[in-house]
Amino acid sequence: MNDVYYMKLALDLAKSTKGQTSPNPMVGSVVVKNGAIVGVGAHLKAGEGHAEVQALKMAGEKAVGSTIYVTLEPCSHYGKTPPCADLIIEKGCKRVVVATKDSNPDVSGRGIAKLKEAGLEVEFGICQEEANELNEVFFHFMKNQIPYVTLKSATTLDGKTATVTRKSKWITGSDAREDVHRYRHEHDAILVGIGTVLADNPSLTTRLPNGGKNPIRVVLDRSLRISIETKLIQDQEAPTWILTTEQASKAKQTELEQLGVNVFRLQDDSVESALALLGTKGITSLFVEGGAEVNGSFLKARAVNQVITYLAPKLFGGKEAPTAIGGVGFHEVEEALELEIKEVTTIGTDIKIVSRVKGSE
Amino acid sequence: MNDVYYMKLALDLAKSTKGQTSPNPMVGSVVVKNGAIVGVGAHLKAGEGHAEVQALKMAGEKAVGSTIYVTLEPCSHYGKTPPCADLIIEKGCKRVVVATKDSNPDVSGRGIAKLKEAGLEVEFGICQEEANELNEVFFHFMKNQIPYVTLKSATTLDGKTATVTRKSKWITGSDAREDVHRYRHEHDAILVGIGTVLADNPSLTTRLPNGGKNPIRVVLDRSLRISIETKLIQDQEAPTWILTTEQASKAKQTELEQLGVNVFRLQDDSVESALALLGTKGITSLFVEGGAEVNGSFLKARAVNQVITYLAPKLFGGKEAPTAIGGVGFHEVEEALELEIKEVTTIGTDIKIVSRVKGSE
Repeated sequence: MNDVYYMKLALDLAKSTKGQTSPNPMVGSVVVKNGAIVGVGAHLKAGEGHAEVQALKMAGEKAVGSTIYVTLEPCSHYGKTPPCADLIIEKGCKRVVVATKDSNPDVSGRGIAKLKEAGLEVEFGICQEEANELNEVFFHFMKNQIPYVTLKSATTLDGKTATVTRKSKWITGSDAREDVHRYRHEHDAILVGIGTVLADNPSLTTRLPNGGKNPIRVVLDRSLRISIETKLIQDQEAPTWILTTEQASKAKQTELEQLGVNVFRLQDDSVESALALLGTKGITSLFVEGGAEVNGSFLKARAVNQVITYLAPKLFGGKEAPTAIGGVGFHEVEEALELEIKEVTTIGTDIKIVSRVKGSE
Repeated sequence: MNDVYYMKLALDLAKSTKGQTSPNPMVGSVVVKNGAIVGVGAHLKAGEGHAEVQALKMAGEKAVGSTIYVTLEPCSHYGKTPPCADLIIEKGCKRVVVATKDSNPDVSGRGIAKLKEAGLEVEFGICQEEANELNEVFFHFMKNQIPYVTLKSATTLDGKTATVTRKSKWITGSDAREDVHRYRHEHDAILVGIGTVLADNPSLTTRLPNGGKNPIRVVLDRSLRISIETKLIQDQEAPTWILTTEQASKAKQTELEQLGVNVFRLQDDSVESALALLGTKGITSLFVEGGAEVNGSFLKARAVNQVITYLAPKLFGGKEAPTAIGGVGFHEVEEALELEIKEVTTIGTDIKIVSRVKGSE
């Protein structure tokens, strides 16, 4: 048992909370004394105790002289809860092992400094890369104040999202489709264009065997063409937000608002304006599920951080068959959005490719 | 050391001849006596000695009382060479281990029967699946008398073969492009449509660091639109065959033939007619390198056995950007050509997917 071993456990605890801590980061903590684990904890939900608080509570008196592992630098300021650095000192921990720093430049490093000043031994950077990757969304939001955008597509191996006659049920298998619902659960919001709503009348909820959290459903609808009868307006399963522009009818807006829908008028119908609005509303992660036009707009705006691609082992063919990313596209090869492949797996009979956009932070 | 060990060596010897034995199968052989390898052989080229002949020649007198491993049932009939079964008996082998049977129904099993009648011990079916897969092309040709068709595509992760302005240099990296040349080396013929010839003026030769065999270059050109100036007509690097129809100009045909090009007039411009002609000309394997229209025709005719897909980690977007498989496409999801994924690997920074068409033999 070494520092990496315990930190990996703390990371596992943090990971287990994926989808439920927003706008806070996922954090895990483990307290070890004389080679035995005496406390474990994770931050479960914004407003509830931090990971260190939970782990130290479990450790009780055994915290005295212990080593505490925490995946993110303990906080040093009064937020919704008192500073964790103070608690660690007060409880008598001897050594603190930290994976990565707080991303907020105003406080980054202060928690560690406070612990050192109090005479505790601090080890920094154990499993740092993994810890940074875990909270990529949180760090991105802290830095940019707009959501981390994941673009999802599901196509045949020849890149088609439907046949030439627009048939698409189903392309991928049930395992891949369930995987999509896990992403919905993990995201603050899901976004589609009005075209998809009018064509498919989707519910955009999370349907997993053991339930799951519904994301806020965001529709880009510049002239409020949405039908009052659509599931997104009628089903009350999750909040629905419509982003529109000044050209939309005021009467339609009122009608929608009376049905509990949030309508936001933006200065234009750009992706940038949409993301800025969502950022101010605290949306840290956005799952973009198309259609082709909306995906194309996000691509053209280079407003994509992660791409999830499902490929079904079949070929549709057809020059006129639709593809996942439409719009005007890039003209030159050099303009292409460059990706780094992070993961290639098979899921059921389909292939899943996870990639990050190069240079996105 | 057991039977599987020696058979795998024989299979490795067979595999090493990929691309050079057509229209014959790849076959390897190992002779073992008292736990030591005393002979190895492979069939190198049509018209040259069979694998068993080579291995027994190396073994010399040591063949007496030996075990001979051979990846394909020894032949029992007089072809270009005398029957290998007779030679094995004559050389005094005691035991024969065979991976799989000869695919020719007229002679399948006869070699084994002859060996048994002569009192040799015969073990059948060691590494059979691997041996069948190795000679999939040969078995397919023996059964269907048309080439085994491999369709290759190279696209961005969003399925595009070029940008909306038709820029495509380069999509995949150099490793993937070199891999394509290995497939050219391994195939009897490569096929493109006249559209690709007019647009790209390709040479369609095999360009590998250590050389390689050029495939016969086949162009589908129903009205002989090909320009006399194209590389395929002028470069003399490899035979060029043009498949055309009755509507083509006789004068143009004569002109092409005088330049050494083979022109074949088919009754129609269907994929079926093209494959039947190539089959009668002894083409056992065909590498289809598009463009989109030709790929679409092969798909629609369900005349595809294997699909090689290279995916580059980039996104072009664009509703009007071309995809790998065009044409009219299938109308219903249920009509899609169903694939079985055989291999997913990364090659340089690209992803390579090898899949077989389900039910193709």
